[in-house]
Amino acid sequence: MRPITSTLNFVDALRIILEAARPIARIETLLLLEADGRVVAREIVATGDVPPFDRAAMDGYAVIASETTSASASSPRTLRCVDHVFSGHMPRRGLGPGECMEIATGAPMPPGADAVVMVEETTRNGDVVRIAAAVTPRQNVGRRAADLAAGDAIVSPGQVLNPSRIGALAATGVTRVDVFSKPTVALLSTGDEIVQPGVALAPGQIYDINRFTLETIVTRHGGHAMAMGTVGDTIEALVERLDQARDEDIVIFSGGSSVGDRDLILDILERRGELLFRGIAVKPGKPTIFARLGQTPFFGMPGYPASCLSNAYMLVVPFLRKMARLPAWEPRTIDLPLARRVVSASGRHQFYTVRVANGRAEPAFKASGDITSMANADGFIEIPADVDIVEADSVVTVKFF
Amino acid sequence: MRPITSTLNFVDALRIILEAARPIARIETLLLLEADGRVVAREIVATGDVPPFDRAAMDGYAVIASETTSASASSPRTLRCVDHVFSGHMPRRGLGPGECMEIATGAPMPPGADAVVMVEETTRNGDVVRIAAAVTPRQNVGRRAADLAAGDAIVSPGQVLNPSRIGALAATGVTRVDVFSKPTVALLSTGDEIVQPGVALAPGQIYDINRFTLETIVTRHGGHAMAMGTVGDTIEALVERLDQARDEDIVIFSGGSSVGDRDLILDILERRGELLFRGIAVKPGKPTIFARLGQTPFFGMPGYPASCLSNAYMLVVPFLRKMARLPAWEPRTIDLPLARRVVSASGRHQFYTVRVANGRAEPAFKASGDITSMANADGFIEIPADVDIVEADSVVTVKFF
Repeated sequence: MRPITSTLNFVDALRIILEAARPIARIETLLLLEADGRVVAREIVATGDVPPFDRAAMDGYAVIASETTSASASSPRTLRCVDHVFSGHMPRRGLGPGECMEIATGAPMPPGADAVVMVEETTRNGDVVRIAAAVTPRQNVGRRAADLAAGDAIVSPGQVLNPSRIGALAATGVTRVDVFSKPTVALLSTGDEIVQPGVALAPGQIYDINRFTLETIVTRHGGHAMAMGTVGDTIEALVERLDQARDEDIVIFSGGSSVGDRDLILDILERRGELLFRGIAVKPGKPTIFARLGQTPFFGMPGYPASCLSNAYMLVVPFLRKMARLPAWEPRTIDLPLARRVVSASGRHQFYTVRVANGRAEPAFKASGDITSMANADGFIEIPADVDIVEADSVVTVKFF
Repeated sequence: MRPITSTLNFVDALRIILEAARPIARIETLLLLEADGRVVAREIVATGDVPPFDRAAMDGYAVIASETTSASASSPRTLRCVDHVFSGHMPRRGLGPGECMEIATGAPMPPGADAVVMVEETTRNGDVVRIAAAVTPRQNVGRRAADLAAGDAIVSPGQVLNPSRIGALAATGVTRVDVFSKPTVALLSTGDEIVQPGVALAPGQIYDINRFTLETIVTRHGGHAMAMGTVGDTIEALVERLDQARDEDIVIFSGGSSVGDRDLILDILERRGELLFRGIAVKPGKPTIFARLGQTPFFGMPGYPASCLSNAYMLVVPFLRKMARLPAWEPRTIDLPLARRVVSASGRHQFYTVRVANGRAEPAFKASGDITSMANADGFIEIPADVDIVEADSVVTVKFF
């Protein structure tokens, strides 16, 4: 057995991990509506003006503004309505002196007109329209290219697409967008005791949990999870699966990072890769490995499901988001008084789960081996390594899952 | 033309909308890994204990705790190692007096043993193991059912699935989960000027933006968008599409809620449904309709893309999330000084877009018709109807998109 005799502090572990993250360079082309949340890889510029013509910004009457200067409610200006123009159609004629044209919001302005009087400021009787308010040139007119001019950058590399940016791309007729590919993440659960849900357990066996928590969190944070099932505790099996897995951008094993003599991962990593750290001063999640196999980053996560998932939040998520070129995760937070005193592990950065109830943060952590330590919690607080006790009623910052 | 002569205030509009939202009752069964973010429809209880046996919580030696009471570093207790037990296997024998058994984390405890001494507290020479620390009964033992006991509720109706809850379900061998179906949302863009991206624009035409912004935001907030394309401005076309659309849980038209004489939606709604409001005191987004067609809620969104999308954030998202049984949207927020004075529309609740730059919130809003009012912003501030001016350097709460 090879005990973990020293641990790296959390801040250094995170620094080493982030330094090893190489943002993805591969690019793929997606249909616009498939691209929400994805990271733009190439600038897209407007190929035309938006809108492509001057248009009415209100329903009302297109006028020559200078003809309305004296108009008021008590002394309206009378104009003759010579036609109408609907949206989607071009005006059939222009305006001359004393004329106006009924116009719908979004319709192209007729030649000669330079303003729109809102319908609310008018009364009409047959062709005769009374204008009860003056308008200035360009008033209530949406000018050609006001939204986007041909050549304007709509999105730039590194921007994350969202509803409004997808709308701006649609505005210029864009149907496809080049985005950075998602990092692929090989997920393997090691351990002879691990069985996939769907089959009956034999004595001594348990169901795989980490594959499910890891796949879900990887998917949430911009990765493409490639579940590779379970692998037994033999050198041959581990080496074979590791060789398959290293074609992906990131490899995550869970289990096999403990200190038992069947914990062979470490031997393999030392022989075939570069071990960057093993054992970190966090709780839960101490027996965590980070290594490189050639250029492929490797996480050896603890087998215990609460440890595995909490280190996924603390270490894998920042790493993955940097690889995926996504901004750092910013969980929703709330500051609340702690319902009960918490005694923290001395010298270890603690990820401590809590439930929010009655306006307080109630400790929810049970044990590293219990997934219900997290499933029955709403989020977590972090307790730095140099803090041993957090008293009841201390205000803590809860980060929601 | 039928001008909007009075407007409903924002708070009342939101109240009317939320009162009309009927949470979805349909249930569907999903594979566990497809269910992240979905709302649990039926309680799932553990069918067995997790873990299903007492197990070692550390690598080390399974012992009879009472035999270690006097053990210390200076005076170790010597035990004879009679076997080993790996995870995934059952112990081949039990322990008697003076005996211990090498055990790996997660392996079943041998009969007779009631505690595990960590490997770090031991030295070994052949079969002889020196125990340098006392353990108490159950120390370093994960007890059967400590995580979940058969019959325990794992998830309850209304809970939103997340990585840890999916992990807890996997822990008991669950492979499928019943969740509430997503509300289906029919999306239609009205207006003769609206063309789908991918074809060339004729004079007077513009590309559809709202279909893209709405589909994206509906998908983000738990809806199943059913894009139904564009529909021209004739009674016959509108009635036909409306009749198709009302099979969905929610119908959203964009455009056609303005006051032009081609704005026929209103006539149709009054004839075939119940108009709940038309015109709200918000900016942008005043010409918004909310109605019921039989039991189907109907949103008539403004055609202007910034108006349409901002009202989607303000009205559709709360409605949709209630229909989908999701908790209210809580955007990430930051409090920042406003970079420039903003004059707000008197008497209208304003959704005002801003960029975050240099630690300040910079106004980003251009005009209701400009999607870049939102695409070039990071988020928005809300200015209540009774506030007309927000001075430079006032601290505002920016809500991120």
